Amino acid sequence: MRFTSDQHLDGVRERAFTLGEVPGILWTPETAPAPLILLGHPGDLHKTHPRLVARARHCAAEGFASATIELPWSGDRPRSAAAEQARADLRQALAAGEPATPEVIDRLVLPLVDQAVPEWQATLDALLALPEIGGPVGYAGGIISLGVRLAVVEPRISAALLFAGSFVPRALFEEARQVTIPLLVLLQWDDEGNDRQMALDLFDALGSAEKTLHANMGGHTGVPWFEGDDGNRFFARHLKGVVRP
Amino acid sequence: MRFTSDQHLDGVRERAFTLGEVPGILWTPETAPAPLILLGHPGDLHKTHPRLVARARHCAAEGFASATIELPWSGDRPRSAAAEQARADLRQALAAGEPATPEVIDRLVLPLVDQAVPEWQATLDALLALPEIGGPVGYAGGIISLGVRLAVVEPRISAALLFAGSFVPRALFEEARQVTIPLLVLLQWDDEGNDRQMALDLFDALGSAEKTLHANMGGHTGVPWFEGDDGNRFFARHLKGVVRP
Repeated sequence: MRFTSDQHLDGVRERAFTLGEVPGILWTPETAPAPLILLGHPGDLHKTHPRLVARARHCAAEGFASATIELPWSGDRPRSAAAEQARADLRQALAAGEPATPEVIDRLVLPLVDQAVPEWQATLDALLALPEIGGPVGYAGGIISLGVRLAVVEPRISAALLFAGSFVPRALFEEARQVTIPLLVLLQWDDEGNDRQMALDLFDALGSAEKTLHANMGGHTGVPWFEGDDGNRFFARHLKGVVRP
Repeated sequence: MRFTSDQHLDGVRERAFTLGEVPGILWTPETAPAPLILLGHPGDLHKTHPRLVARARHCAAEGFASATIELPWSGDRPRSAAAEQARADLRQALAAGEPATPEVIDRLVLPLVDQAVPEWQATLDALLALPEIGGPVGYAGGIISLGVRLAVVEPRISAALLFAGSFVPRALFEEARQVTIPLLVLLQWDDEGNDRQMALDLFDALGSAEKTLHANMGGHTGVPWFEGDDGNRFFARHLKGVVRP
């Protein structure tokens, strides 16, 4: 892990890094060592940076460090012809008013998850070796299939907040049954680009004994501000052991 | 309104009252005047008293007064032959493994809502005349059809937390579209006595621009403790104007 920049924003230290070929960002609060929240996002760190900084600052205010890495084939990373083709096929189907087929969803999401999960795990190895990171780890955000796979294969992740807002391959429904960590799933109820019934089916499939669904109005990027607070309280319960007063 | 008892529990003053033929209970915190939360329940104040006291104490800890009244034909109130018959018919259908028909749901719930709503409104008149009650009013609890009707017809109710755990007559789905106040709907996902799809359909039908669904595991009475905190924060936003920090 090589740090490539270091700046202090309001209340949070932001460091860009690269790990091998993968660029990422680490945000740490003034208190250390801090529990860590891995921030999932839909790809392209440049584009999502403002939203990620807002979430990182919200995490830091509650004493959490947070970090993210670029997704495979997104942002400044090399493209994949197969991924571009899958995206084009999906876009074409949706533009024609056709549903996304399971086949195109598999082609779009499964290689991404297969590639991204070991990168997130290598990032976790490197982050947990830093003195300013300590304690349990959470995952927060989309892509929900990535969050589900990480929850299954990565025992160092103790709790996850998943955004139900992307296509989910059939195979992930089976993996979902193997998830046992506490979950908070966010669903934007009237998100036109999202398959609500699929999201409800996935929530139903998740194996965790403690799982909570929060559904709100407002479209894909309209998650209400109070869900940020609810997310922090969820992670405070599961990463910091904050229990009923 | 005639008070029939007055005692100080830990942190909350509990007074039983009668309003005409209707018995009820008022809980007030030490701070006054306090905003008021009307506590819905499934009927029989004696049986539900411990759970209601726990909720009233939780309300009082956040500076809310709370109150409830007995449902028609429940607890110590006179019985209704028609209501008893509807309950017996429902019980018989469920015992035979048959679904609850819309006809029996209508017979069970509509007369109850028709009778209870004016009683709650008269209670509200009396409570708002007390010097220790002031500010906006919320409704929290089941029966969800009662909460929906109150939200439509009673402009003094500013926000409602509804428990989706009872049968809903078809007519109430139409009324649900007329609801405009902020809502938090609680659903126990794996509640065997509850129709999950009906609850999701009702949530979808509710007309409010701000509505949030919280679904949890754990059966009908297994609502997790942190939902009590979430409910208080919901009412703090809408009854006390607590906004983003």
